[in-house]
Amino acid sequence: MDAESLRLAERFLPSTYLKQAQDADISRRSRIHQLLEKRKCPDEGWDDQMIEGLLVDLSKMDSNNFPANCGVGERESRIFSGLVAQRHYRLGHGIGRSGDISEIQPKAAGSSLLNKLTNAMVLDLIRRIGIRGTQACLMMPMATGMTVMMTLLALRDSRPQAKYVLWPRIDQKSCLKAIVTAGYQVVVIENLIEGHELRTDVPALQEKVSTLGPENVAAILTTTSCFAPRGVDRLEEVAKICKEHDIPHIVNNAYGLQSTKCLHHIQQAGRVGRVDAFIQSTDKNFMVPVGGAVVAGFDAQFIEHIGKMYPGRASVSPVLDLFITLLSMGVQGYTSLMTQRSEHMDYLRTRLREVADSFDLQLLLTQNNPISTGLTIPKGVGTELGSQLFLRGVSGVRVVVPNQIKTIAGVTLKGQSELCIVMIV
Amino acid sequence: MDAESLRLAERFLPSTYLKQAQDADISRRSRIHQLLEKRKCPDEGWDDQMIEGLLVDLSKMDSNNFPANCGVGERESRIFSGLVAQRHYRLGHGIGRSGDISEIQPKAAGSSLLNKLTNAMVLDLIRRIGIRGTQACLMMPMATGMTVMMTLLALRDSRPQAKYVLWPRIDQKSCLKAIVTAGYQVVVIENLIEGHELRTDVPALQEKVSTLGPENVAAILTTTSCFAPRGVDRLEEVAKICKEHDIPHIVNNAYGLQSTKCLHHIQQAGRVGRVDAFIQSTDKNFMVPVGGAVVAGFDAQFIEHIGKMYPGRASVSPVLDLFITLLSMGVQGYTSLMTQRSEHMDYLRTRLREVADSFDLQLLLTQNNPISTGLTIPKGVGTELGSQLFLRGVSGVRVVVPNQIKTIAGVTLKGQSELCIVMIV
Amino acid sequence: MDAESLRLAERFLPSTYLKQAQDADISRRSRIHQLLEKRKCPDEGWDDQMIEGLLVDLSKMDSNNFPANCGVGERESRIFSGLVAQRHYRLGHGIGRSGDISEIQPKAAGSSLLNKLTNAMVLDLIRRIGIRGTQACLMMPMATGMTVMMTLLALRDSRPQAKYVLWPRIDQKSCLKAIVTAGYQVVVIENLIEGHELRTDVPALQEKVSTLGPENVAAILTTTSCFAPRGVDRLEEVAKICKEHDIPHIVNNAYGLQSTKCLHHIQQAGRVGRVDAFIQSTDKNFMVPVGGAVVAGFDAQFIEHIGKMYPGRASVSPVLDLFITLLSMGVQGYTSLMTQRSEHMDYLRTRLREVADSFDLQLLLTQNNPISTGLTIPKGVGTELGSQLFLRGVSGVRVVVPNQIKTIAGVTLKGQSELCIVMIV
Amino acid sequence: MDAESLRLAERFLPSTYLKQAQDADISRRSRIHQLLEKRKCPDEGWDDQMIEGLLVDLSKMDSNNFPANCGVGERESRIFSGLVAQRHYRLGHGIGRSGDISEIQPKAAGSSLLNKLTNAMVLDLIRRIGIRGTQACLMMPMATGMTVMMTLLALRDSRPQAKYVLWPRIDQKSCLKAIVTAGYQVVVIENLIEGHELRTDVPALQEKVSTLGPENVAAILTTTSCFAPRGVDRLEEVAKICKEHDIPHIVNNAYGLQSTKCLHHIQQAGRVGRVDAFIQSTDKNFMVPVGGAVVAGFDAQFIEHIGKMYPGRASVSPVLDLFITLLSMGVQGYTSLMTQRSEHMDYLRTRLREVADSFDLQLLLTQNNPISTGLTIPKGVGTELGSQLFLRGVSGVRVVVPNQIKTIAGVTLKGQSELCIVMIV
Repeated sequence: MDAESLRLAERFLPSTYLKQAQDADISRRSRIHQLLEKRKCPDEGWDDQMIEGLLVDLSKMDSNNFPANCGVGERESRIFSGLVAQRHYRLGHGIGRSGDISEIQPKAAGSSLLNKLTNAMVLDLIRRIGIRGTQACLMMPMATGMTVMMTLLALRDSRPQAKYVLWPRIDQKSCLKAIVTAGYQVVVIENLIEGHELRTDVPALQEKVSTLGPENVAAILTTTSCFAPRGVDRLEEVAKICKEHDIPHIVNNAYGLQSTKCLHHIQQAGRVGRVDAFIQSTDKNFMVPVGGAVVAGFDAQFIEHIGKMYPGRASVSPVLDLFITLLSMGVQGYTSLMTQRSEHMDYLRTRLREVADSFDLQLLLTQNNPISTGLTIPKGVGTELGSQLFLRGVSGVRVVVPNQIKTIAGVTLKGQSELCIVMIV
Repeated sequence: MDAESLRLAERFLPSTYLKQAQDADISRRSRIHQLLEKRKCPDEGWDDQMIEGLLVDLSKMDSNNFPANCGVGERESRIFSGLVAQRHYRLGHGIGRSGDISEIQPKAAGSSLLNKLTNAMVLDLIRRIGIRGTQACLMMPMATGMTVMMTLLALRDSRPQAKYVLWPRIDQKSCLKAIVTAGYQVVVIENLIEGHELRTDVPALQEKVSTLGPENVAAILTTTSCFAPRGVDRLEEVAKICKEHDIPHIVNNAYGLQSTKCLHHIQQAGRVGRVDAFIQSTDKNFMVPVGGAVVAGFDAQFIEHIGKMYPGRASVSPVLDLFITLLSMGVQGYTSLMTQRSEHMDYLRTRLREVADSFDLQLLLTQNNPISTGLTIPKGVGTELGSQLFLRGVSGVRVVVPNQIKTIAGVTLKGQSELCIVMIV
Repeated sequence: MDAESLRLAERFLPSTYLKQAQDADISRRSRIHQLLEKRKCPDEGWDDQMIEGLLVDLSKMDSNNFPANCGVGERESRIFSGLVAQRHYRLGHGIGRSGDISEIQPKAAGSSLLNKLTNAMVLDLIRRIGIRGTQACLMMPMATGMTVMMTLLALRDSRPQAKYVLWPRIDQKSCLKAIVTAGYQVVVIENLIEGHELRTDVPALQEKVSTLGPENVAAILTTTSCFAPRGVDRLEEVAKICKEHDIPHIVNNAYGLQSTKCLHHIQQAGRVGRVDAFIQSTDKNFMVPVGGAVVAGFDAQFIEHIGKMYPGRASVSPVLDLFITLLSMGVQGYTSLMTQRSEHMDYLRTRLREVADSFDLQLLLTQNNPISTGLTIPKGVGTELGSQLFLRGVSGVRVVVPNQIKTIAGVTLKGQSELCIVMIV
Repeated sequence: MDAESLRLAERFLPSTYLKQAQDADISRRSRIHQLLEKRKCPDEGWDDQMIEGLLVDLSKMDSNNFPANCGVGERESRIFSGLVAQRHYRLGHGIGRSGDISEIQPKAAGSSLLNKLTNAMVLDLIRRIGIRGTQACLMMPMATGMTVMMTLLALRDSRPQAKYVLWPRIDQKSCLKAIVTAGYQVVVIENLIEGHELRTDVPALQEKVSTLGPENVAAILTTTSCFAPRGVDRLEEVAKICKEHDIPHIVNNAYGLQSTKCLHHIQQAGRVGRVDAFIQSTDKNFMVPVGGAVVAGFDAQFIEHIGKMYPGRASVSPVLDLFITLLSMGVQGYTSLMTQRSEHMDYLRTRLREVADSFDLQLLLTQNNPISTGLTIPKGVGTELGSQLFLRGVSGVRVVVPNQIKTIAGVTLKGQSELCIVMIV
């Protein structure tokens, strides 16, 4: 309803009723203006109607939705199925251009603006929840593993000789695959056992850098969020080594945005040492379907460089999910979920301790892991316990078995921890 | 995207791309302006995106969707289920006010405008497809039977004494119920058999008027669209009688809007005699779900009076369906469906004649029924034929049985026609 | 996914994963079985996915959605617009048949089942929240006013002579219209002022019955839910009079289902006297869009009779909204909303008392109105206060002006109460 | 509605009506059974209701939609926004596992089955429209450029030394980026000018292979679909060279699936020589939003190997779009679109020839390009013509300028063709 429509509507309705509707619309519009002007995630979440209204407006800005469009190119965003058109709000052009994932498409002003706004909101949110020094971020329409890989590939230009990636061990397949598929050789740095916890062996890492020669090290890949009994890597110390030896430092912060501790370590590491990029999954941190990741960093140019490596366009779908979710949550929604998560963790620890006391087990003492906890369990009950929990609808529990040997992407890993069962909140 | 938003969007996108999107939007807006200004059904149908865009705009004009609304009344359009809110585009206030179905609601400017526009479009369409003299119409959010009843109730004021409704017989329950529930006494005028056809017995009708006394006749209720072998009523002749004796004349045009013949007879009847209202079902004429009817007439005041009889608000849902459908069809879409229907009828007649020739049956010759046709069939095969067709997925066929006696709402009717099987296109 | 599909899916997935999915489905299915078997509103609400799943299943049972359907009748539920089809889950046949609003349609088994289940759930809910003696109910796809009118029309058969409806006054237009449009004469029984409250003048009513003669009284129409300072009618006493004199008693319980007090009075009145039907709005009691009402009673036959008066089919849309909402709320959801409403009322009274104390006004003492409260205000500030509240987004407030004279449907009413401003929670 | 539900529904409806609904469901079910059993794209497209029904069924099989699920892992598919959940049919787990993009997820049987079925349908379709020898295909949830890159990365294992990718030039940025980002060196093979056309310089290619040494060539990357005046590469001859010298051959078939000519060349090349993989964009070939590609080949093991390179999970969204679209189109829908496209091309050529004749221009004679055509234009009018067309809503036209020099990803390219304006159908 533009001004002219409202004027014409006076032929049907008293102007006072229209005035009232128009007034109500002002607050909606002003929130849109603020979003565009401040480039910030709104403090308070929007309702669904406002979000859909903006999406429809953005969608109308894409050429495939122009009333009189005659496409004679190969990329005209023709959509066959009405179901598909509708579920994407008729956005079909994707994001990026051949050259750059964050470049604007002339044919798709709406999708491009959506992408820019989403990135702006994520950047604002990351800063406000704790990593204040963040200079840039890039929403990648692919999951964390692929994003780690793309980030590693982006390092090759400046360090064509370097072929090793040093990796304080974490028993997770994707990041290992990411290194190997990017064409690098993985150098595993085994963790130290400290009480129940597994922590970064900084001296071993330091020594490896010397042995291999810093110039041959493409990057050190550390991890924040992980399953207990492993703790957050000693990011600050690794960051200092990286700074000293001029080695890129990539942080796998897969599900760490939701934890103030992980955020704090990244912020500190960036302040006292070197962090080139930290990467987080959108599904785990923003409660959207699997399919996106955010790579962020303290040097805008490097983040931009990653975007420029991307060959071709990409799906707008994960961006759209994040756009909707951030507008819907607002910063307040996000931080209250963080608080809630932390309370849930306290609750879980309390109740697990009760279980531990009753059955003579031990709660894992992993103060350096803010996200995961667990119980040591007697030999032989692991698998059964796991399947019992599963039958009761408890999904996601892991049973950690000591001395178990696995080979992933050519790298052999042997279980270090005690037998335990672990959970994440 | 208002002007200010577009200005602010220039911080993200080149202004040329925004200009192009803005230009594309002009043709969309101008169609909305035309709708509001001309109050006409668009010639060419709109695409779904345009329709939904306008619906969202209208919905925002209702107070339940105002960003800061605090309701302390009993009608605040609170909607519990998100599924329900969404399927109604968050329109919840219904239409009308206690006093009048077509009155504007101060709390629901959007719903009210939607209602006004729908009525304006229907009126325009009815005029353009054939009943040029139509002065007013009213979309009623209830089906044809109820609308006939409400129309009859609206007559009582001006003719409090009259207790008879004269009714050239049609074997359809709802209209009979409508008369009886409205508190009138039905006077059945049996049809004349002319060849295969059943036609209005005008002399008998005339005589009944004299016998009962015109002042005691509340209305004559004629019918256009019906199953063969009955034909369209002799509307013009009945209309003349009504005019002469000052008797209200209501036409049940249930599914007759789609037929030029029915339209023609109503237009003529209104010209040469008296037609107070003609009523048509929205599901049958506009391909929407069951639940609405349009009452139209040559005297705007009477139509208004019907609206003013309505006690309370009503569902906006049937109006919404019609609004969407008329915008989506456009006048061109409607007339091309009319042509198509007529071609289908020719096709059906041709093929049925082939069947008739092969099996020694007879095609019903019912030139006064433009909508329905059928075959006379040998005794004893009716029921079986019906169920055979049903098993083959052919629904809607009727088997007409002669001499069958039915009692509906206290009125006893005996089958007049030959045994036949009939279909509608 | 039927058993055969799951068997075939084993060609793609391990059977254990399929087993797990199948197990999960059992609890969903069992809730559907329970619904069909027990005919009760579920205790706990269902999630949207379950509800939509059931709707899709029901929709597939209607003939317009049969894969190979060839319609040759006039009611084939053809839907033109995809938007319309989708928002109705492709249900198009409406409910009821010519003869009866609650009759089953052979072409629409799904819609018919939906209608039956909705009525069963409403009946169960009404019983469980307080009117235990309810024998039958009927969801009418039209708002309260129309439903009151239809109920009054249904009385005519058995009392053809009776022409008066006695009506303890309530300043609400629709019910007055309902009486007048149904063809009855309204006899207003003015209320007694007791303190701040307006209460039924039982002696006056009794006298009027005697004066007019009970056999000439078509019905007494009482009201439960209303704006302060009027209180709930003295239902029990009126019910006794009705029983004694064999006069039908209709209760307008427009928004009273949500109040235990209103429920209690209806239940008691039914126990000690006569209540033929009590009628409630679905939008106000169930938080759905305007457009439906429920007529319920202690005598199943009379309720059935109302359904049988209905001429023709009706929209399934209000039924669908209620179906979705009841499944989504569950009985627990409904009762917790009742509790919440009551708490809100306490809160409102407390805060209004503070306002009253500060500004030397008086909180209306209306202990017989559980739903509405207000403040007496000084002369001359009414209109301004109203518009000030409106500007602050507070909708629904009413200013009651003493001695104001209004004429509705030919009936003249003069304001009785003190000047006050009232709200509903 | 399972059998038990239908049995229970008999309490509400006559069993004959239920039987009829059940019968109608059989044909729906049998189509689902066929899909699962035959693993083929249906011949005839499904309607939206059937497609959505199956999607809901699949969605229910994912653990996040189990009625009683308690997630204590990091990947539990929690979805914050209802809008997001709904647009993905509540599928949130993505596809693939850390190790392999086509691996099944235990927590997401539905998503996994969806993925398998989509791949099976695409494979079937590719075979039936022309590349009969195709052994395997893999839908990648990323666009063509990224998929080319992943395919090139997958070659490294078996040819760790090879560092060159030979590339018969095509002026398109993404494929160039794909090679460079994958870490290879691009060796441009300039095309030969033959009449208006640019065609593969096979001798030059052959010579380059000799010069560099076949063992140093990682792959030859050819192209089928492209803008005129370039033609389809001489695939068969290149394939023979690849076979002879044991060099991998990747075909960029970006929008070539819709052209019988492109299909024919790939099929032939696979028969007479070596083709390791051919890659096509889903948006361009299947009319879905940008974001997916299909890599297919004549050796199932290599295609599988590509899948196993993928680090981590991926978005199910592009798979979902393709699933819906293939079911909706059916093979018949696809082939009729192919025919239509070809007719449109004939029409465009005819009308362009008329333009050419009127303005003394020349239609590009590019018989080896079945998809694109154009006109040679006089000097100086290119840009203006382009913008004139753009203003008239014609998008996608390209102006090819001779001798223009561009540097992409470090590779310098100089325009070879005559000045012309080209279009694609």
